[in-house]
Formats: sequence, C-alpha cells, structure tokens
Amino acid sequence: MGRENDYEVFAAGDVVLQGGATLRDARLAYKTYGRLNADKSNAIVCPTWYSGRHWDNEWMIGEGMALDPDTYFIIVPNMLGNGLSTSPSNTPPPYDRGRFPNVTFYDNVALQHRLVTERFGIERLALVTGWSMGAGQSYQWAVAYPETVERIVPFCGSSVTSVHNKVFLEGIKAALTADAAWNNGWYATQPTTGLRAMARVYAGWGFSQAFYWNQEYTRLGFSSLEDFLVGFWEGFFLDRDANNLLTMLWTWQNGDVGRTPGFNGDTVHALNSIKAKTLILPGGKDLYFPPEDEKWTAEHIPNAELRVIPSTWGHFAGHGTNPEDVRFIDDAIKELLAR
Amino acid sequence: MGRENDYEVFAAGDVVLQGGATLRDARLAYKTYGRLNADKSNAIVCPTWYSGRHWDNEWMIGEGMALDPDTYFIIVPNMLGNGLSTSPSNTPPPYDRGRFPNVTFYDNVALQHRLVTERFGIERLALVTGWSMGAGQSYQWAVAYPETVERIVPFCGSSVTSVHNKVFLEGIKAALTADAAWNNGWYATQPTTGLRAMARVYAGWGFSQAFYWNQEYTRLGFSSLEDFLVGFWEGFFLDRDANNLLTMLWTWQNGDVGRTPGFNGDTVHALNSIKAKTLILPGGKDLYFPPEDEKWTAEHIPNAELRVIPSTWGHFAGHGTNPEDVRFIDDAIKELLAR
Repeated sequence: MGRENDYEVFAAGDVVLQGGATLRDARLAYKTYGRLNADKSNAIVCPTWYSGRHWDNEWMIGEGMALDPDTYFIIVPNMLGNGLSTSPSNTPPPYDRGRFPNVTFYDNVALQHRLVTERFGIERLALVTGWSMGAGQSYQWAVAYPETVERIVPFCGSSVTSVHNKVFLEGIKAALTADAAWNNGWYATQPTTGLRAMARVYAGWGFSQAFYWNQEYTRLGFSSLEDFLVGFWEGFFLDRDANNLLTMLWTWQNGDVGRTPGFNGDTVHALNSIKAKTLILPGGKDLYFPPEDEKWTAEHIPNAELRVIPSTWGHFAGHGTNPEDVRFIDDAIKELLAR
Repeated sequence: MGRENDYEVFAAGDVVLQGGATLRDARLAYKTYGRLNADKSNAIVCPTWYSGRHWDNEWMIGEGMALDPDTYFIIVPNMLGNGLSTSPSNTPPPYDRGRFPNVTFYDNVALQHRLVTERFGIERLALVTGWSMGAGQSYQWAVAYPETVERIVPFCGSSVTSVHNKVFLEGIKAALTADAAWNNGWYATQPTTGLRAMARVYAGWGFSQAFYWNQEYTRLGFSSLEDFLVGFWEGFFLDRDANNLLTMLWTWQNGDVGRTPGFNGDTVHALNSIKAKTLILPGGKDLYFPPEDEKWTAEHIPNAELRVIPSTWGHFAGHGTNPEDVRFIDDAIKELLAR
C-alpha cells in the first residue's frame, strides 16, 4: 500500500462551516503513530502545512525524537483542501472544484477536535505543534480549546496572517490564476503554466537571500539554480491541484485566532486567553513569517517564550530537510514536553 | 508639451551590443537639468531604474538638493528598453517586440558614455548616482570608465545581481508570461492579466514586511490594502509595455560588473579596479538588495563606504516618496560631493 492510501478517515457527516456553507459527508483524513496510553494522556496533534500531507510531517516522528511513538500517540490530521481530507478535488457537485466553500483555521481545528474527542475519547492533548499553517492550527487549537491543549510549539507560522504575508499570497495566487487554463477553477486538466509560475514566485519567498547567496541548493542535489527552480519548485506544485491550493490559500490569508467564536475579531483578547505553555519558534530569516511578527504574538500570550531558529533556510527552516534546523526544533519540543 | 515628449535624443547610429546583435539607429533619450560650466567639471549622470523614465528621477533634482541645477549639470539618460530610449515597443521590424535583443548594463553605459563625451565633450563626471538598476549603472560606469567617474552613490542596488534577486525576477517574469495573451511577445494589445499578476507579485517585494505591518500605504492616500494593490501596483505596471519590462528584466538578471570588457567575468577584480569615491546606500529592509550583499561589494572597492538607509520602506526607500529617506539619501550625496 503506497503512502497515498495509508491513512484513516474520520467521516464527520455534514459540517457547517464558519462561512455558512455546509460540507456534506465531510471527511478528515489522518494517520496516527504510536499508541494511546490507558489514561489517554500521551496524545499529540501535529497538523499539516500548506499543501503538505500527513507523510510530510513524518520527519518529526521517530525513535529518539521529541515525537517518539514509543512514548506518544501522535495524530497527524490532513488539512481541509489538501487533497486527502475533503477538498475541491474530491468533493462531488455541487460544491466541487471552483465552487468549494471557504474554510477557516477554526473550521479545520473544530473538525480535528471532533476526531480527537469522538473517535479517541481524548480530553487533554500533551502538545499541538506544526510548521507554517500547522503553526497557525496550533495557535487555533490553543485558543479554541484552552482546557484541552497543554502545550503548543508553533514554528515558522503565525496566530494572525500579517498584511505583508497576505500580499505575498496575493502574488502567488495572481501568478497561478493568470493562466487562462485555470478558468475560474473549471479546468479539465491542471493549469500547469500557472502552477509553474506560482512555483517560481514561491521560490524567492520560501528560502532566504542567504540560502541562495550560499547556493545551498547545490548541497541538496540540484545541479544549478535552474535545476532547483524546475526540479524542486515546479515539481512541488505540479504535484498539486490548483483549486486545492486556492482553498488552502484562502484559509491562510484569512488566518486570525481573533475569528474564533466568542472573540469577535479581537486577536489580542484571543491570544490573552491561551492557557497552553507556548514555545514559539520563528525562522530567523523567514521572509513571510518574520521573527518580529511572532514577537508581537508572544507578548500577548500569558505563558509564551520566543526562540528564533538561527537558520539561513528562511521559511524552510521548518520543512524538515536541514539537519541543524531539525535538531533545533526537536530539542525545543523536547524541552517543552519535559516542562 | 507633456513630460512624455519633453526630452532630447542622442542618435547613436548602429550600436553593436555585447550579445552580438546590432541595434540600428539606436536612440538614447535623455534630459538635462542646469548648465554645463566652462571647464565642464560640474556634470552628474543619474540613470533611470527598472521601468523608470527620466522624470521619475526629478525628485532628486532641485534647489537646495544635492543635485542642484544651479550648481550642477545633471544628465538623466533613459535606460534602453524603458520605452523612450530604443526599446521593443519603438523598434521597427525585424528587431521589434518579441525579437528585441538582450541588452546589458554595459551596453547601456557605453551608450551613455558616448552621449557624455560626443555630445557634450565631458571628460570627467563629478558623480554618477541612481536607484536600483540606476545603482547598477552607477557601478557599471565606475568599472567601465574609472578615469571618468569621480564619485558614485549607488542606492538600493548592486554591482552584481545576486542569486536570490534573480529568483525574485524569475517570479515576476513567470507571472507576467503565464498570461497566454503575452504570446511570446507578439501581442496585439498588452497582456493585462499578466501585467496585473506581475504587479501583485512585485507588491510583496517592493516594500518591507514592516511597511505593511504599519499600513504605511494608508498614509499615501490608499484607502485599503486592496486599493494599494490595484491603485498603486497594478496601475504602475499597466502603464508599461510587457516586452519592454522583459528586456529590462534580462538586463537586471544578468547584471554583473565582471562582464565589463577586460574583466572576463571576474566581479571582484572589476570592483577592485574602481577609482571613484564610493558611497553605497542599501535600504535596511530591502528584500531583494539586502544590505549584506552590498557589504560584500563595499569590501571589494578600494575607497568605499557603506551606509544603510534606516527605513522600513524596503526597496522603495530609494523611490523618492518617503521624505525621511529622501533626506537621508540627499544628505549622503551632498556629503560625498563635498569630499
């Protein structure tokens, strides 16, 4: 069985989204690692990132790692829109493809909460952690379910999508949708020109200026800059569905823990309410989640520490590819789990 | 007479480019400010930036400014490809539009050198200064004509286009050319979807994260982020010709003073050879010409000083819109001119 099929599904029935639409027969795809202990105290949730699938988080999980399956029961839920959970690409008409509804971080986390409580009967989570949009979901968990979440380690992400980050996303969206083949989402085959354009725009944002200055990509097995742009970046996005990407992009652009029910758009109030022990790890040279934004977030969470990842990999410090960054993140999570 | 027509033209005849093509009946559009003095010692060249026209440099020129036309004779040459000098949009077949040849920084500066010497008989330039690609041309002047150039003040630019900067440019190019209406340059009307996409991608790069965090655009008369993206950015690029933009983009991507004849690609050797007093002003939060790159350049020029513009405006610290940045740049130029 290939990894594309090696997961479980939580059939959530009809799910009413924050925006008012109903996702009928919503499916949450997830995979678990390790075993839930008797008192159900060893569960960790590790949500996926923008276009990531559960297997893309497996670098965090393993013997001797913070997320050790011998100790913890790790649940990796796939984000709505990622192609495995309910998404534009797998939803039947009339909510299919170009008509798929907008999904918020809260919509995702509320569904994950049902998985955790209804399927597993878990009432406390030792940790929620994730990269990028996985960080956004970590914050969202801590705000929406303060009594459930004991700790969070959001890395290279944010509690509220900054204006500049929105602009970055406008850019990649514009590049993708400039391809007429996209056709407002009603394409017969993927708009590959748009996907490749999106990839080239993303390339400059994903890694830092220093990463390129040092030509780090040559140490990753790419023979030239152009080989990196085609082999890594275009390959990355050609493997995705355009509507799925746009659905997750909307989620990202509209990220804000202040939109959690009960907070009426007040982001600071939402952050103030977090009870989880919080360790925030921004990438030192992350171009769209810069450390100064996360500093702001940390100031508004009662029990938060900020620790900058000293990396030239930019946003991709949290991708799990650079051994030094992996160690830094893993050590940080171990430390918080020990508290 | 509108500003679009208020300029002079240097008819250069047939110009052989570094790439081997011949620009026939090449035209260099320029404007001068002030009067050349008797011993021809008061001339300043101030080249244009990516898609800028001579009037876009006029914020630097005026009574009491460093570039005071009562004191100096200021020549603003329009870059090849900017729509006023020889460009894809104004060249007759067969070298028109999608067939316009590649042009280097050196090609531009060699033509400007002819203007300066042949038309005006000037042998020494008190200063060459410019923003962005204007900075690139300033470096190019100092390397190609070390005996001619007494001082340079390149701001928010570079002597060699960094790898990351090339990737940024790949992104905006991909966004523009994802529009099928572009048609490899053989469009009947401008590919506006592509131009708008390019604008949205550029928006995230042009100004810093902090600029957006502080919503500085609202102080510029834009009523919302979207109004800034449409009103400023899309308007900016809709006013340009797609092939012209791609010509100048190629110039930029291939910027490297090491490609000056005689240096055989050796950038460091080329920088070592500069005799001009050099004051380099990177923008503190410039996302594609970061200060650390310019620090590298400064280390290789014998008589160079680096002074970072303390601005949240990112690359657009050098655009002439933010009064504090204008003052900083103007003061720096004044100081160097006094040496």
